[in-house]
Amino acid sequence: MSTRLSTPKDYAQLIDKYETWMFDCDGVLWQGDKLIDGAVQVLSLLRDRKKKVLFVTNNATKSRRSYKTKFDQLGVEAHVDEIYGSAYATAVYISSVMKLPKHQKIYVIGMEGLEEELRDEGVAYIGGTDPADKTLESFSLENFTLDPDVTAVVCGLDTAINYTKLSKAFQYLTRNPDCQFIVTNEDSTYPSAHGLLPGAGAVSAPLRYALGKDPISIGKPAKTMLDCIKAKVHFDPARTVMVGDRLNTDILFGQAGGVSTLLVLTGITSESQVTGPDASSIIPDYVAASIGDFRSAEM
Amino acid sequence: MSTRLSTPKDYAQLIDKYETWMFDCDGVLWQGDKLIDGAVQVLSLLRDRKKKVLFVTNNATKSRRSYKTKFDQLGVEAHVDEIYGSAYATAVYISSVMKLPKHQKIYVIGMEGLEEELRDEGVAYIGGTDPADKTLESFSLENFTLDPDVTAVVCGLDTAINYTKLSKAFQYLTRNPDCQFIVTNEDSTYPSAHGLLPGAGAVSAPLRYALGKDPISIGKPAKTMLDCIKAKVHFDPARTVMVGDRLNTDILFGQAGGVSTLLVLTGITSESQVTGPDASSIIPDYVAASIGDFRSAEM
Repeated sequence: MSTRLSTPKDYAQLIDKYETWMFDCDGVLWQGDKLIDGAVQVLSLLRDRKKKVLFVTNNATKSRRSYKTKFDQLGVEAHVDEIYGSAYATAVYISSVMKLPKHQKIYVIGMEGLEEELRDEGVAYIGGTDPADKTLESFSLENFTLDPDVTAVVCGLDTAINYTKLSKAFQYLTRNPDCQFIVTNEDSTYPSAHGLLPGAGAVSAPLRYALGKDPISIGKPAKTMLDCIKAKVHFDPARTVMVGDRLNTDILFGQAGGVSTLLVLTGITSESQVTGPDASSIIPDYVAASIGDFRSAEM
Repeated sequence: MSTRLSTPKDYAQLIDKYETWMFDCDGVLWQGDKLIDGAVQVLSLLRDRKKKVLFVTNNATKSRRSYKTKFDQLGVEAHVDEIYGSAYATAVYISSVMKLPKHQKIYVIGMEGLEEELRDEGVAYIGGTDPADKTLESFSLENFTLDPDVTAVVCGLDTAINYTKLSKAFQYLTRNPDCQFIVTNEDSTYPSAHGLLPGAGAVSAPLRYALGKDPISIGKPAKTMLDCIKAKVHFDPARTVMVGDRLNTDILFGQAGGVSTLLVLTGITSESQVTGPDASSIIPDYVAASIGDFRSAEM
């Protein structure tokens, strides 16, 4: 059973207990472009107490640099090397784990943030925001030439998803049996400022369905994301807590990585999913209404 | 085990045995815009022998009328009342089975053929080929107003699929818990003239994934398509054969409907999928290399 935090003492004890705090962002620190009340103060409090703060997000539409800009605009202190996005983790996976040879490239379904991370890691790619693929005209294989250097397809959230991109990716994945199928993350939905929209998992679903095969997934809850963090930062799992709003990504990710988990109720998950007859089988160590409630620890 | 047809006597006996012949089209009578060699002659032979000929296709991008035009262009005799497409069956399902009240409407992801069948059945709809939805710009819920009269979402193959359409459909299906989720068919791929492309099942996969729920499916192998045919044509299942190229749609459809099944190898299914160690568990009654081989029955 989860421990429900409610008193100033609860919050203060948790802050004492953990030295590394990993935060999901959407639904935890902000909703769309709106800061969660008190989030800035709580992050400052943690920094004042010399805690290590990391931001671990599945949103692959942004690079770490564009994430940093978002933090700045919202007035939240953050440093690029504290930010772990699934776009960055995907680029690191391709360059360091797959070790993609220099002459090979990937076909991208995704947005500028993903392209930026790939470029930074020296991964060659085609597709992405290429205007040639930004079309709603019918796609015909008659005019399509397969690039023989493409040995992986990477798919992330892409709000310009279309039949041409899906068809090209499908050709690479079916005509070259060794072509890897990688997704930045599998979130079914995306919490926009004004409500839920289809997420990265929904954008890659046509390829999964047409291929009848599951992709390699990089973001939370996959271990790949944790491996990426471990390669850059030292932390003690016994003194680390993962704070998130989604049971099947954030909390599962923390549990798989052997760190403690704290669910906040300012995002996807509602109270009824953690208590009562319809509760999920994924049980966080702690539950708090909002990250902002940790302000009371200061008093 | 399937009976493999090969001699003129085999073909002649089959023609004698069945009085109603249901044909899939793509991969059976033609590939893209190219007729299967001998298909026209075999259809004429069946008509000369007073057989009932029906065309049963999952392709929902065409209405029966536009299908008739395709038959005409390829020089194949066909009548509109012999053609059963999943677009037509979907429209009939909504008007006759769901009995959608006149003031209600559906949100469509699909192409002109589907819209035409809906109009013919008196089903009101929004979306579809509406230029307002033909966009690759970001979609924001801020400017979106839910139409309270939409009580179903219908999704078919749509080569202009985009994030705006998926997001709108997702809103209808999540904000109105009674909103029905209907797909014209679930084919994972579509056999275009120059090779396989993602099919209708792939186009609806983002909604399935984001909703975590399966739709009502109309086309083969679903019984809904057969119910639609039965409502219009009398046939004796014991003397009917379904001819198709796809095991998990055509052959399964025939078996579920209690009619005999004949697989031809001019489309999706290869020899190795019906014989040998990797054979499918879906076993047709008969297998022939091509519908064109039935010409030899005439000699």
